[in-house]
Amino acid sequence: MIQIANGVYRMTFGTPEAFTPVGILKPRPRFEALNALPDCPPPFREDQIRFFSRRGSVTLELPLDPSEDLYGLGLMLKSFRQTGLKKKLRTNSDPTADTGDTHAPVPFCVSTAGYGILVDTARYASFHCGNVKKRGSRQDREGYPSAGTQYGHWWVKSGSGNLFIDIPAAEGVTLYLFCGESLKDAVARYNLFGGGGVFPPLWGLGVFYRAYMPGDQKHVMKLAKELREEEIPCDVFGLEPGWQTHAYSCTYQWDSERFPDPDGMLTELREMGYRPNLWEHAYVNPASPIFESMKDCSGDCYVWDGLVPDFITEKARDVFSSHHDAIRKQGVSGFKLDEADNSDFTANWGFPDFASFPSGLDGEQMHTVIGTLYQQVMKKPFDDSNERTFGQCRQSTALASSYPYVLYSDLYDHADFVRGMASAACSGLLWTPEVRFAGSTEELIRRIEAAVVSPQTVLNCYQVPTPPWRQWDYEKNMRGELLPDCEEVTATVRELLRFRMRLVPHLYTAYYRYYRDGIPPVRPPMMDYPDVPELRDVSDVYMIGEGLMAAPVVYGTGDRKRVFLPEGIWYDFWDGTRLEGGRFFEKTVPLGQIPLFLREGTLLALAEPLPCLADDTVFDITLFAYGEGDCSCTLIGDDGHSCDYLTKPPAEILVTATGNTYTVSTPHPRYRIRGLKRIL
Amino acid sequence: MIQIANGVYRMTFGTPEAFTPVGILKPRPRFEALNALPDCPPPFREDQIRFFSRRGSVTLELPLDPSEDLYGLGLMLKSFRQTGLKKKLRTNSDPTADTGDTHAPVPFCVSTAGYGILVDTARYASFHCGNVKKRGSRQDREGYPSAGTQYGHWWVKSGSGNLFIDIPAAEGVTLYLFCGESLKDAVARYNLFGGGGVFPPLWGLGVFYRAYMPGDQKHVMKLAKELREEEIPCDVFGLEPGWQTHAYSCTYQWDSERFPDPDGMLTELREMGYRPNLWEHAYVNPASPIFESMKDCSGDCYVWDGLVPDFITEKARDVFSSHHDAIRKQGVSGFKLDEADNSDFTANWGFPDFASFPSGLDGEQMHTVIGTLYQQVMKKPFDDSNERTFGQCRQSTALASSYPYVLYSDLYDHADFVRGMASAACSGLLWTPEVRFAGSTEELIRRIEAAVVSPQTVLNCYQVPTPPWRQWDYEKNMRGELLPDCEEVTATVRELLRFRMRLVPHLYTAYYRYYRDGIPPVRPPMMDYPDVPELRDVSDVYMIGEGLMAAPVVYGTGDRKRVFLPEGIWYDFWDGTRLEGGRFFEKTVPLGQIPLFLREGTLLALAEPLPCLADDTVFDITLFAYGEGDCSCTLIGDDGHSCDYLTKPPAEILVTATGNTYTVSTPHPRYRIRGLKRIL
Repeated sequence: MIQIANGVYRMTFGTPEAFTPVGILKPRPRFEALNALPDCPPPFREDQIRFFSRRGSVTLELPLDPSEDLYGLGLMLKSFRQTGLKKKLRTNSDPTADTGDTHAPVPFCVSTAGYGILVDTARYASFHCGNVKKRGSRQDREGYPSAGTQYGHWWVKSGSGNLFIDIPAAEGVTLYLFCGESLKDAVARYNLFGGGGVFPPLWGLGVFYRAYMPGDQKHVMKLAKELREEEIPCDVFGLEPGWQTHAYSCTYQWDSERFPDPDGMLTELREMGYRPNLWEHAYVNPASPIFESMKDCSGDCYVWDGLVPDFITEKARDVFSSHHDAIRKQGVSGFKLDEADNSDFTANWGFPDFASFPSGLDGEQMHTVIGTLYQQVMKKPFDDSNERTFGQCRQSTALASSYPYVLYSDLYDHADFVRGMASAACSGLLWTPEVRFAGSTEELIRRIEAAVVSPQTVLNCYQVPTPPWRQWDYEKNMRGELLPDCEEVTATVRELLRFRMRLVPHLYTAYYRYYRDGIPPVRPPMMDYPDVPELRDVSDVYMIGEGLMAAPVVYGTGDRKRVFLPEGIWYDFWDGTRLEGGRFFEKTVPLGQIPLFLREGTLLALAEPLPCLADDTVFDITLFAYGEGDCSCTLIGDDGHSCDYLTKPPAEILVTATGNTYTVSTPHPRYRIRGLKRIL
Repeated sequence: MIQIANGVYRMTFGTPEAFTPVGILKPRPRFEALNALPDCPPPFREDQIRFFSRRGSVTLELPLDPSEDLYGLGLMLKSFRQTGLKKKLRTNSDPTADTGDTHAPVPFCVSTAGYGILVDTARYASFHCGNVKKRGSRQDREGYPSAGTQYGHWWVKSGSGNLFIDIPAAEGVTLYLFCGESLKDAVARYNLFGGGGVFPPLWGLGVFYRAYMPGDQKHVMKLAKELREEEIPCDVFGLEPGWQTHAYSCTYQWDSERFPDPDGMLTELREMGYRPNLWEHAYVNPASPIFESMKDCSGDCYVWDGLVPDFITEKARDVFSSHHDAIRKQGVSGFKLDEADNSDFTANWGFPDFASFPSGLDGEQMHTVIGTLYQQVMKKPFDDSNERTFGQCRQSTALASSYPYVLYSDLYDHADFVRGMASAACSGLLWTPEVRFAGSTEELIRRIEAAVVSPQTVLNCYQVPTPPWRQWDYEKNMRGELLPDCEEVTATVRELLRFRMRLVPHLYTAYYRYYRDGIPPVRPPMMDYPDVPELRDVSDVYMIGEGLMAAPVVYGTGDRKRVFLPEGIWYDFWDGTRLEGGRFFEKTVPLGQIPLFLREGTLLALAEPLPCLADDTVFDITLFAYGEGDCSCTLIGDDGHSCDYLTKPPAEILVTATGNTYTVSTPHPRYRIRGLKRIL
């Protein structure tokens, strides 16, 4: 066991493979940040780990105490706490079953005992989180029941076995162990090892609207104008597949019939305050100008008749980046990176596990890392021009916390969509419960509520020409028929999106902490309160930055929301009610309201809502101080869009409220504080 | 390529593993039957097969013509035609996604070009059925589009690539190639290689009723009497987990509190004409009398705190068989073998892939074969006493066609349940769309309709004390509240089950052909008409024996059924309508009616319905002759229950109708022919 930073250890068992996430993705650990944290001993000795092999795989057995709970393993839409479960981590675009198939497999799991384990493998590794009880094991000798054993009406989910990690094809593996005072600390160190969390541009914290797929330039400009006229806040205007001459596979070329003047359109959108974003995927169509150059740096199987670039090769990276740099220069702020996952059962697209790539990877390994490599390649033009970007991605893996892309899915169950935020936060990932369509006004509003308090607010309306708040019914939307109460629905949506805009300063600080300290901006409350048993299965409530808990109603569960508030004093944002924590609260939630709770001592900085965020935006801030004592918060002051924060830390403005007055450590032109309200 | 029988070839690539289905399951090929069939050349040369390896797996590439369609691969509930799809064959108790997870993975696929391939591996092999287009391949050169490519509104499902089979952990593999004149012929030869299809006892073709799980001896006897009083046909009376002292894991011992006199109860049930059947699974509880003996012949991990027997070892087989022979002797006719699959996401029970077994198998290999080994062990007491048995099983694999167990599942989607019969038939398996509960009278009746024309009619009513036709609502059933129209519903159900009893002679012949010729008794019409494109995706209609097509309404699809009748003349069973085939027909189907179509020339032998089948049952037969010409059928005459048919072929009684008279080749006491009806 080799210590590589404070609280970070590395161990190698057997002979690791040539291609692993650490080797392929080349993270730049934030060693200075890691070593500024207190040192921390490992939770177990190396000789407590068993390493054994069978034909075609190696297995690690790590001690797991029955009191521990495990989380992480990537984006899990169907489960949160992994104790008692097994997951085979496999990239899959349709993860409808809770087997480990996921858009983002991350071989990192983290324990409530305050440590996390990164298994450096690009294989479809299986994690058995305490569900295997071996004969003669400690758990056997001490009489813990097997997982899945029925006692009365309960199935034992935990406490029955150690943690087993089974890695196919490998003959050895390297583990990274991240230790800390708590689970959150371990996640933070893992994120810092990956380079720290992403710090998006200010505009990335506003609202994304993705437009009707078959729409042409005229449609786009009409819609863009309407959003402004309707005073619907919107920062990012996204175009879906239709912008290209061929989308499945991609040409990465404007369709001049539908978009006769892309430069003019992009300029006009920019002038209206929009940041244009383009959809694409990585499979290169024969008609693409880069097809010929990609031929000798792509895999040996097609996807949708397109080449699959080997983004490990310099040539594929260069050709792809350069082509996209030209598109960026046209005025594009970012991209939506679709289809980097693999379909096992919608239309069976994707390259096989036995595909081979010029770099030497096979298909299985490539499936694990392709989405993250794609993100690397697509952010390069922005890095090179000292601009931040922020977009969406459909595949990710380990060590991706610093990448400016948020995961999304074609699956659409709302409970799953809300739950995704919880597992993502434990895995160094960001996830958006994006809004596409709805079957009712209630569903539309509930979905937008959750999106507003998520890492990225995306209204992905590519299926309908008119925004869904004017008509959520697909057929009627296509016919141009509006909801009878569309003005009311629009007003509710407008207020919700304005609330997102009010939250931007608070979110910007939360994201900066993601970069600086590795703390996920949106995370399950278990992460802040690991010792509260009532929170260990809570995945529909989350902490946003410091002191703010959001509990959006999951569509389909009625209008009641049940929330466990940890010990201490909390305040209901909407009516200021003072609540003594340590128990469950339940409330009826009207449509358009997102239940929010503030921890005593929190100073919440809310901005006047803006229609969109400019680089020189000035926020008019009202401070909300919760409880009698001193309350404080930090605001982040920088240019909001360049990569300068990487070398020159932004201003951290400490705002403190004492009684009915407040002080500001260093005034900054970004923020104009207009007042303070104290809630007792 | 070595020829091992007429139309059967074997090829080995690399070094095959020590443990494979053929080696483990030791099939007894029916060489005499195979060699009585015409010889047939292989569809490709050995040098047209590519064999290559990557780290941790080997891959086979077999030529696939764009015109071919592939079927099989085991029990697939979510798909039927496999062309354009990939399946990773993995035992899983909750196969809710169409990835290849299944109760019964069978590494056998069969082509409309008239050949089938058995890949002799117990690994979780992946089959890519033409969905992979390799660069430079024939398909690439000839311009076939990739699978999943969208053209207009269509996704290309086929024609894009060869057949790739990827086998993890192995360094080589043996293939068996079954050739024939048609897909059906190839399936038949595969079944004959596995020993021929099962020939169940006559009583196994009647009705199975499985009783309320918590019910005691009193409840069982009351229910058994009621079924007789109500004149509900029933042959097999099944007890669910409650009969044992401990069920999860199993003790295989009567709970003397609930069942104070099992011998008396079983005798009484027998006297009433029932064949008692007991539920169990293979995981041995510490309180079981066989636990100690099983300790040194079980795997190294528990399931539900029970031992997992290594049924490859002689000792495990002997101990398990002997214990169950004593239960058989009490008057038990068979068993329901539950839980031999593996739960990935209900309660995460099961042993891990890295488990190890005394025989040398690892968990992955054992998961593929355990259910079939379990069937071997459980049928041994019956074989040894020269009695046939017929029960249910939850896991199966290759080469299992001769085993007297029919697959079932906890999943319950009716479309899936009906579809299961189609893929099972292409894979040497039997599947029952068993009836458990319903949300309406309509659902109950539609489900029973499909069960009546399936390989095994199972009413698995373990959740409710009163049969569901008296009350399908769970809560009301528990309260003892009956349906207001329960007499009507019961009458409809009674008539449906009586129809099953009328079909028994026809089914018995169909099953005998399964044994003798390998022809599945219930099969998709594609199998009989491989060249009819309209039938290639039909999995909700099937052929039963010769000349009879059943098209039960799938619950949830309304009361209309659309059926494609192949070229030729067909007759509607219910109204005798003469139909000219070669096109689709659609009809409104009243509740309680199963659409049935008879091919011209068919002589259907229907019996007077009996409440149950005794070994000396005599059937009163009415013959239905379809069309003007001569019609004939075969009836099977034997003792109906012993294994003598294996050494002494039963009488095959040829019945021929000419005009309005009929002849019988050899009269047999089993059948009394009462009359002939001719339908023109």
